[in-house]
Amino acid sequence: MVREIVLANAPSGFPVVELGKSDSTFELKELELPELKDDQVLLQTIFLSNDPAQRGWIQKDQNADRAYVPPILPGERMRAGSVAKVLKSTSPSIKAGTVVQCYGGWAEQLVVNAKDAFPLPDIPELSPSVFLGAVGVPGLTAYFGLKDVCKLQRGQDIIISGAAGATGNVAVQLAKHVFGAGKVVAIAGSDEKCEWLKKIGADVALNYKSPLFSEAIAEAVKPSYVDCYFDNVGGAILNACLPLIKRNGCIAACGAISGYNDPSQTVLSNWSEIIINRITVQGFIVMDYYHRRGEGIQVISSAIKEGKLSVAGGETIVRTGFEKVPEVWMRLFRGENTGKLVTQIADL
Amino acid sequence: MVREIVLANAPSGFPVVELGKSDSTFELKELELPELKDDQVLLQTIFLSNDPAQRGWIQKDQNADRAYVPPILPGERMRAGSVAKVLKSTSPSIKAGTVVQCYGGWAEQLVVNAKDAFPLPDIPELSPSVFLGAVGVPGLTAYFGLKDVCKLQRGQDIIISGAAGATGNVAVQLAKHVFGAGKVVAIAGSDEKCEWLKKIGADVALNYKSPLFSEAIAEAVKPSYVDCYFDNVGGAILNACLPLIKRNGCIAACGAISGYNDPSQTVLSNWSEIIINRITVQGFIVMDYYHRRGEGIQVISSAIKEGKLSVAGGETIVRTGFEKVPEVWMRLFRGENTGKLVTQIADL
Repeated sequence: MVREIVLANAPSGFPVVELGKSDSTFELKELELPELKDDQVLLQTIFLSNDPAQRGWIQKDQNADRAYVPPILPGERMRAGSVAKVLKSTSPSIKAGTVVQCYGGWAEQLVVNAKDAFPLPDIPELSPSVFLGAVGVPGLTAYFGLKDVCKLQRGQDIIISGAAGATGNVAVQLAKHVFGAGKVVAIAGSDEKCEWLKKIGADVALNYKSPLFSEAIAEAVKPSYVDCYFDNVGGAILNACLPLIKRNGCIAACGAISGYNDPSQTVLSNWSEIIINRITVQGFIVMDYYHRRGEGIQVISSAIKEGKLSVAGGETIVRTGFEKVPEVWMRLFRGENTGKLVTQIADL
Repeated sequence: MVREIVLANAPSGFPVVELGKSDSTFELKELELPELKDDQVLLQTIFLSNDPAQRGWIQKDQNADRAYVPPILPGERMRAGSVAKVLKSTSPSIKAGTVVQCYGGWAEQLVVNAKDAFPLPDIPELSPSVFLGAVGVPGLTAYFGLKDVCKLQRGQDIIISGAAGATGNVAVQLAKHVFGAGKVVAIAGSDEKCEWLKKIGADVALNYKSPLFSEAIAEAVKPSYVDCYFDNVGGAILNACLPLIKRNGCIAACGAISGYNDPSQTVLSNWSEIIINRITVQGFIVMDYYHRRGEGIQVISSAIKEGKLSVAGGETIVRTGFEKVPEVWMRLFRGENTGKLVTQIADL
């Protein structure tokens, strides 16, 4: 018997992550795994990716038409990116012992078709977990957001919110050290995160919980405002940034974590700035750039090799028992992680 | 002695349009006009343009840096587009009796340099007031919004809010009869306005004050949502439209009248739609297209001649005494006008 965690009650507000309550969002299930058919692998999950976007996938009463991936329905396993070890294989191309990346979800062990498991490149100096962060989806999101959405040019100024998060910290580092941005203004939720951001490339890093935040950010963009705002959070911080974007500037709308559990908080009293200052807001999803994944990985890997992108401080790995997986995930929404939040449920 | 109306107290909320109170937004002033110098004209104001944008020009504590025209300061005459008659002229190029368009503001009579007064083309079938509406700034806003911001293609579907307003009604007619839109969904604030909109080109016209509005608009865009949303109002209607825009669709952010007097109403709980469905929001100001004014006037005039654009129902002219000018202007914010709201203070 192995365990997996499935959606029990689709939430419309804050998820209830304790298991076993009547209103729990998730439910622990035990099951027998099937025998391997041809060209399949049995996987042991090692690392689970925690992503704010997962909250959207389980939202109650979604219109599947509008979703960018199929909604997860009650009874279905929670979807998540993962790094796993092959325990058994009937595939000629993947040997037992190989470390792979896949969308394994919240399962201790699972059987997948070999074509859905992607062996990680063997780079001894990188933890396999990094392929869920800087060299994975969040890193690619940062890269394509800066390159194709912001179209960030050398010398341009940028504000990045959620800057200590998985995507944000890569965006800060790439903006400064690869794209050659002028001023990089980072926004995060603690003084400690801000100190770290200044070390990795932010010219200014501001704690949005500080009572002086509004004044500080208005001061930080002087004398000429910023060309772009890379928005990972939405809500009040987005509203505070609207008056700080140059005429004809842009907003890369990447995420809106501040509103995922309570969208009514999205009060944009500064909306008129979009009109008056001819701002472009462009929503994007990294999936649309997957055909150029190679380009992104290439830029990110080179940046790591050249010391322009540090992955050391860019992840928070939580080693825990499987039943704590939902609780660790919930830390995303309390801002408790610095860099990529990864859950480790077994040794490599 | 002639009269003009100046800003007294810059408002942050709803303007107080009664004159003579301690907290009045405006103040009536009497003054002697100067003698004409060379190349000047003495004008009698006939029609005053009422525009939602004027509310922005008088906002309290504006950052002049961010404004697209200089803020009006207390003591300064209220700015407004106008149509006026030349009473006296020292200019060789403009004779007394000529009807001109200018930015005369809220003044009964005024002296301006001849170069700032533009004689209207003499088209007997058009009221001169139309040059403040369909053949003026609102009409050009509709045209460039559809052409350059929405990039509306033949057969594409569009939602237009504030559709019975000065810009909105021209947008509805041009979208349907000139751009060849597929479905045109118009939103307005009364059943009467909706009836009129259906006559001039809307396939569907919905009263946002109806308790069934949300269901009705979701139904109206079936089966495939709309390519574009031409937004004149912002706020709750913008929020309702966010889930109705196609993947990779766009919003032309033209106006936000719902929030001009109370921006805190701008709760965009559906913001995530911008991200998930890769929507582009593009703010614009018609001034940026003035170098192509000729093109816009050409398209609009041809549409009128060909019977594709009706200007008859597209204006509400209020004949009133000069001291009532602020009160008439305030009707914009109560949705009391159908089409362009024009104040007439003297006979032509």
